[in-house]
Amino acid sequence: MPRFRETSLKSTPSVPRKERIKDPKNVMRSVDPAALLMLEKAKEKNLISSFDRFAAQQPQCAFGYEGICCRICFQGPCRIKAEVGPGSKGICGATAYTIVARNVTRMMAGGASAHSDHGRHIAHALLHAAEGKIDDFKVTDVEKLKRVADRVGISTEGKDANQLAKEVSLAALEDFGRQTDEPCRWLWAYITEGRRKKFEDCNIAPTSIDRAVVSMLHQTHIGTDADPVNIIFGGLKTSLADYTGMHISTDLSDVLFGTPKPVVTEANLGVLKADKVNIIVHGHNPILSQTVVNVAREMEDDAKAAGAAGIQLSGICCTGNEVLMRSGVPIATNFSSQELAIMTGAVDVMVVDVQCIMPSIRAISECYHTKIVTTMDNSKIPGSYHYAFDEKHAVESAKEIIRLAIEAYKERQGKECDIPQIKNKVIAGFSLEALLDLFSAIDPETPIKVLTDAIEAGEIAGVALLCGCNNLESVHDNNHLTIAKELAKNNVFLIGTGCAAQALAKAGLLAPEAVEEYAGEGLKNFLHRLADANKDKLADGLPLLFHMGSCVDNSRAHDLCTMMAEQLGVDIPKVPFVAAAPEAMSEKAVSIGGGAVAMGIPTLVGTMPPIEGSSLVYGIATQIAFDVYGGYFIFETDPMVAAEKLNAALEYRTWKLGIHKQVAEKYGTRLCENY
Amino acid sequence: MPRFRETSLKSTPSVPRKERIKDPKNVMRSVDPAALLMLEKAKEKNLISSFDRFAAQQPQCAFGYEGICCRICFQGPCRIKAEVGPGSKGICGATAYTIVARNVTRMMAGGASAHSDHGRHIAHALLHAAEGKIDDFKVTDVEKLKRVADRVGISTEGKDANQLAKEVSLAALEDFGRQTDEPCRWLWAYITEGRRKKFEDCNIAPTSIDRAVVSMLHQTHIGTDADPVNIIFGGLKTSLADYTGMHISTDLSDVLFGTPKPVVTEANLGVLKADKVNIIVHGHNPILSQTVVNVAREMEDDAKAAGAAGIQLSGICCTGNEVLMRSGVPIATNFSSQELAIMTGAVDVMVVDVQCIMPSIRAISECYHTKIVTTMDNSKIPGSYHYAFDEKHAVESAKEIIRLAIEAYKERQGKECDIPQIKNKVIAGFSLEALLDLFSAIDPETPIKVLTDAIEAGEIAGVALLCGCNNLESVHDNNHLTIAKELAKNNVFLIGTGCAAQALAKAGLLAPEAVEEYAGEGLKNFLHRLADANKDKLADGLPLLFHMGSCVDNSRAHDLCTMMAEQLGVDIPKVPFVAAAPEAMSEKAVSIGGGAVAMGIPTLVGTMPPIEGSSLVYGIATQIAFDVYGGYFIFETDPMVAAEKLNAALEYRTWKLGIHKQVAEKYGTRLCENY
Repeated sequence: MPRFRETSLKSTPSVPRKERIKDPKNVMRSVDPAALLMLEKAKEKNLISSFDRFAAQQPQCAFGYEGICCRICFQGPCRIKAEVGPGSKGICGATAYTIVARNVTRMMAGGASAHSDHGRHIAHALLHAAEGKIDDFKVTDVEKLKRVADRVGISTEGKDANQLAKEVSLAALEDFGRQTDEPCRWLWAYITEGRRKKFEDCNIAPTSIDRAVVSMLHQTHIGTDADPVNIIFGGLKTSLADYTGMHISTDLSDVLFGTPKPVVTEANLGVLKADKVNIIVHGHNPILSQTVVNVAREMEDDAKAAGAAGIQLSGICCTGNEVLMRSGVPIATNFSSQELAIMTGAVDVMVVDVQCIMPSIRAISECYHTKIVTTMDNSKIPGSYHYAFDEKHAVESAKEIIRLAIEAYKERQGKECDIPQIKNKVIAGFSLEALLDLFSAIDPETPIKVLTDAIEAGEIAGVALLCGCNNLESVHDNNHLTIAKELAKNNVFLIGTGCAAQALAKAGLLAPEAVEEYAGEGLKNFLHRLADANKDKLADGLPLLFHMGSCVDNSRAHDLCTMMAEQLGVDIPKVPFVAAAPEAMSEKAVSIGGGAVAMGIPTLVGTMPPIEGSSLVYGIATQIAFDVYGGYFIFETDPMVAAEKLNAALEYRTWKLGIHKQVAEKYGTRLCENY
Repeated sequence: MPRFRETSLKSTPSVPRKERIKDPKNVMRSVDPAALLMLEKAKEKNLISSFDRFAAQQPQCAFGYEGICCRICFQGPCRIKAEVGPGSKGICGATAYTIVARNVTRMMAGGASAHSDHGRHIAHALLHAAEGKIDDFKVTDVEKLKRVADRVGISTEGKDANQLAKEVSLAALEDFGRQTDEPCRWLWAYITEGRRKKFEDCNIAPTSIDRAVVSMLHQTHIGTDADPVNIIFGGLKTSLADYTGMHISTDLSDVLFGTPKPVVTEANLGVLKADKVNIIVHGHNPILSQTVVNVAREMEDDAKAAGAAGIQLSGICCTGNEVLMRSGVPIATNFSSQELAIMTGAVDVMVVDVQCIMPSIRAISECYHTKIVTTMDNSKIPGSYHYAFDEKHAVESAKEIIRLAIEAYKERQGKECDIPQIKNKVIAGFSLEALLDLFSAIDPETPIKVLTDAIEAGEIAGVALLCGCNNLESVHDNNHLTIAKELAKNNVFLIGTGCAAQALAKAGLLAPEAVEEYAGEGLKNFLHRLADANKDKLADGLPLLFHMGSCVDNSRAHDLCTMMAEQLGVDIPKVPFVAAAPEAMSEKAVSIGGGAVAMGIPTLVGTMPPIEGSSLVYGIATQIAFDVYGGYFIFETDPMVAAEKLNAALEYRTWKLGIHKQVAEKYGTRLCENY
C-alpha cells in the first residue's frame, strides 16, 4: 500500500478546532482585494456585514459544531455531555453516532430538496412552453433536447421539438413523483454500469427525488433509525436524488436557454459602472434572470433616456453563473461578499430568486438607494419589493424590474458611489459540450481521449473539480485560491462551478495569463496544445480553470468523469478525478458531496461539517465509504494540506492505472514512488 | 368581546421557563403508579432510563429550547445572542423570527414525512394485496373500501373488491407523488367547503405529500425564505400534507385489517403475565404487528408446549393502539415508560417497527433475557435482532418472531420477574363508524345529531380531542390526566388517540367507573343515555374518553369535527371542538397541531415547542392563525390553566352558536356570562 493512501484517508483534521478559526476577529478576512476595500469602507461607515456577524458568533457552540446537539424532538435540545452515564445519550437514548448521523443526513435532505426543487421549476417551465401555455419561453436548443431524450430513452423519431420537450419534461417530473420501485431515470441514464450495480447492491438508488427526501426525514425521526451506517446510506440515497435533480436542472436549462459556449467577460466588483443602470441578479434559478438579461438588451434606450450610459448587468452566486455561462454577464462577486456589492452604492436593483440570499441585503440596502426585488413565492424578505414571478408574464416582469432599476438609477444621481476598480478577465462557458468541442479540435473522433491520453502520458495528473460555497470559517476565497494554485502546480486539469469558480474568476484564474503564472509544465503544455488547436475559435486563449457553470452544473463535471471512466475502461473509483468544496457551507454542499462520494470520487471538504462528535460517523464518511463506494470524504481545513491530500489521491489512482513514473517525471507530475 | 377570547389567545405561557421544569431532579417523575414502581426498581438496580437522561440534560440549552439556534448551514451554529448589533442575527443575516420559523416548520416537515410514509407503506401493501402479489394480506373491510372510494370520487360500480382496492390504493399513491397543481384528493374529499376555500385563498393546499415536504425544506434552506408568515404558511401546507397522509393511513388500514369496533381489555404493566410468553409490539405501523396478533392465536399450542400458559400480547405507542383497536390487545404502557416495561424482566420479545422507539431499549434489554426485534429497513438499532419484514412473507416473519419469543420465554425461567400488579379496565375501539353506531341507537336517521343536540341543549360543553405524546418536561402522564379530568368536570365529551389515550387508559379513564367519578352532571347524563341505548351491544358500559386509535387516527377525530360542522351548518371555526396535545414531544405532534389549527381548531400544546425566541412567530401561531384560519395554538404548560383555556375556548364557541345560558346552567356547564 503506497504511503498516500493513508494520507488521503487520514481521519482527523490536521488543525484542531480551536486553532482552526485562525482569525476570530477577522483581521484578515478575505483574499479578494475588492472585498477588503469594501470591508474597510463598511468599518468607516459602521455597516455590519456577514464578516462581522461571523466574528460576533464566536465562540460557536461546540455541541452544534460537532453535530452532537439533537433538536429532532422537543423534549430536547439534548447534548452529548458525557462519556458515560445518563448524560452520554439523548433523552430518548440516542447515542452520539445516531445524533450525528441524523443531523448530517437531514442536511443532505435539505440540500437535495433545494437543488431539485429548482430542477422541478425548470421542468414545469419547459412543459408549459412545450404545451404552448406560455409565450415567453421556448425550446432554444433542439439538439440538446434530442441528446437528452436519447440518453433517457425517449424516442425522438418523427417528433417536433415541442412534442419531444413535452415528453422529456414529463419524464423528468416522473423522477420527482414516481411511487413504484424503478430507479430515477436521469440517474440511471448517466452513470456507469459499475455504479448502477453498486447502487443496486447497496440499495441506495432513489426511486424518486421527493420520496427519497421524505423517507430520509422519516428515517431520522425520533425513535426510527438508530443505526448510523443505515442512516448514512439513506443519506447517500438522498444525495443521489440530488444528483438526479441537478442533472435535470442542467439538461432542461440548456434546452430552454441554450447550452453554454465559451464567453469572454470579467469578474469582481469593478464590473459595476457608475454611469450605468446596475442590475445584479442573484440566487440560483435562471428562469427570471435569463429573461432579465434578454430584455435588458432591448431596453438600453430606456436607460439612455434616463441619462444613463446603458444597463450594466452582473451576477452573484449561481444565478450569476447561469447568465455568465449563457450570456457572458460579468460576475459581481460571490456568496460571502454579496452585501459588499450593495455598499458600493452603485447597485440600483438586486433581483433575487432562491437560495444563498442573505436576508441582510435588505438592511444594507436601506442605507443606500438600492432596491431589493424578491421574485419567488417561496422566498421573500420582509420589507423588500416583491415582484411575484409568473412564467406566463416573464418578459413583462423583467421589464418592470428594469424600469424600477432605471428609476433607482435616477434616484442615485448626486449620491456617493464607490466602486473598487478591481476586476479580472474571465473566459468561461464550458459546458461539457463546449469542453469536448475544444478537445475535438485535436481528436475529432474521440475527443475525451485528449484528456485521458494526457493523463496516461503523465502530462497531467488528473482532473479536479473545484466547487461549492464560501464559508467564513476560512478566510474568504483563500481555500479556493490556495488549493487551485497548488493543484495547477501539480499539473491537475481544473474545472469549476459555483462560488468556487467565482472566487477563482475574481482572482484572475479564469484568464489565460493564469496558465502561464500557475500551471506546472505538463498542464501548461496540455493547455497550450489545446489553445493552439482552438485559436481560430477562441482567440483569447484558455483559462487555468474551466468554468462549467452553477452548482447544479456539477452534473456536467460528473458526466466528464463518467466519460473518462468509459474511455479508460474502468469504473469511477479508478479514474484520476477528485472533487473539492474548499469553503463548503450549505446543505446543498453536503448533498452534492455525498453524491460525489457514492459515485466513487475522493471529495475534499475544506470546512468542517458537523460530524466530529462521532468518530464512528467520521469513519463511515471516510473509511467505510472508501471500502464500499471507492469514493470518500477528505475533511481538511488547512488548504495547503488539503491540496496535498487531493494530489495524493490523484497520484494513487494514476499509479493504479499503471502510468509510468518516468513518463510523469518528464513533466514534473508527482507520481507514487512505489508503484 | 367576551373575556375568555383573550384568555384563550393569551400569548405568554403563564409559567416562566425556569419554573416550568418544576421537578428537575424528577423526584415526582410520573403519576402512573406502575411507572413509579419500576422507577424505584431502576434506582435499586442502577438502570438508566429516559427519566434519568432527562434530568441529566438539565439545564437544557436556552437557544435551542427557544428556537433561536440555527444549524441549517454549517457556517453555524448561529445563536441570537443580542438585541442589536452583529450578534442579533445569524451569520447570513437571518433574524430570530426567520430562524424560529425555519426550525419549527422543518419539524412539521419531519412529522409529515414520518406519518405519511407509514400511510404510503399501507397503500403499497393494499395495492400488492389487490394485485394478488402477496398472500398474507387481503381486503378485510369491503364496506369501508366502498365508503372510501365513494368519498374520494372513485366509482364502485361493477368492481370487485380487488379491482376497487387497486384503484383506491393507486389514487392514494397519487397523493404522494402528484406533480400537477390539483390539491391532494384525500384532503379535498374530507373537509368542509369552507376549508377548501380557505386553503385555496391562502395557497396552503398541498398538491402532493412528498412535494409539500420537499418544498418546505427548500423554502427553509439557507438564503431562501426570510419571511416568517410565508414560512409558517408553507409549514401549514406541510401539515395538511400530514393530514392527507394520516387519512390515507387510517382509511387503508381499516380496509386491510378491519374498521375498529368496541373492545374490552386492560392497560398498564399489570397486563404482562409471568407464566406466559410476553410479546410487546411497539412503534406505529400495524402491518407486521397485526400479523403477529393474528398468528399468535394459532401458536398458543407452541407456547404451551414450551411450558408457558400461552402467549400474552401487549402494545406500546401507536402500534399498540392499532392492535388494541382492532383486536383488543392490552396496552402495556406508553412512550416515556417504554424502557420500564423491559425492567419487569417479563418481556420475552419486543417487536418494533418505526417511530418513537427509544434506541436505549436495546441497552436495557442487555440486562435481561429480552430480545429486541427490529423489522423495518429504515429503522434499525445496532445490536438488536433484525428480522427484515417482507410483506410477501408476513405470516412467516410473524411466526419466526413468535418462535424467538417462545425460546426467550424458556431462557427466562428461573430468572427474576417483577410485574407491577397494576392495570385498569379499558373500553376502546371507537372508530368514527363505531361512535356513530352508538349514536344511531338514539337517532338512527342522523346519528351525529345526538352529539350536536347535546351541545345545543347545553348538556355537554363541546368535544375535546386529547392526543399526542409524552414529554418528560411535564411529570409523566400528569398533563393528560389533569386536563382530561378538568374537561370532564365541565361536561366536555372526550375523545382520544395516541399516547394520550394510553395515559388515560392506564389511569382507568377508559373504564365506565370513570364516568361516575369524573364527569360533570351533563356529561354523565349524556353518557348514561348513550350507554342505556347501547346496553345490548355494550354490556360493559361506556368509557369517559372514547379511544379513537393511533396518532394517524386523529383523522377520525377530524372527520367527527367536520360532521359536527356540517350538522351545525357552520364551518369548523365555529364548532365547539378543541384539540390538546398536553405532553407533545415529536415532530409529528407539531405537524398534526399545525393541521388542526389550519382546520380551524383551538389547539393546546402543553409542553413548549421551540418558538419562544420570536414573539412574532409566537403571534403568528396564536393571533394571526386565529385571524386567518379561526384555529390557533394555545401554549400552556400548567395543566390546570391549560384546561381552563380549553374550557374557555369551548365556551366562546358555544356562546357564538347562541346557546342559552339558562339551558347550560341546568347541567352546570360553564357558559359565557356576557353572551
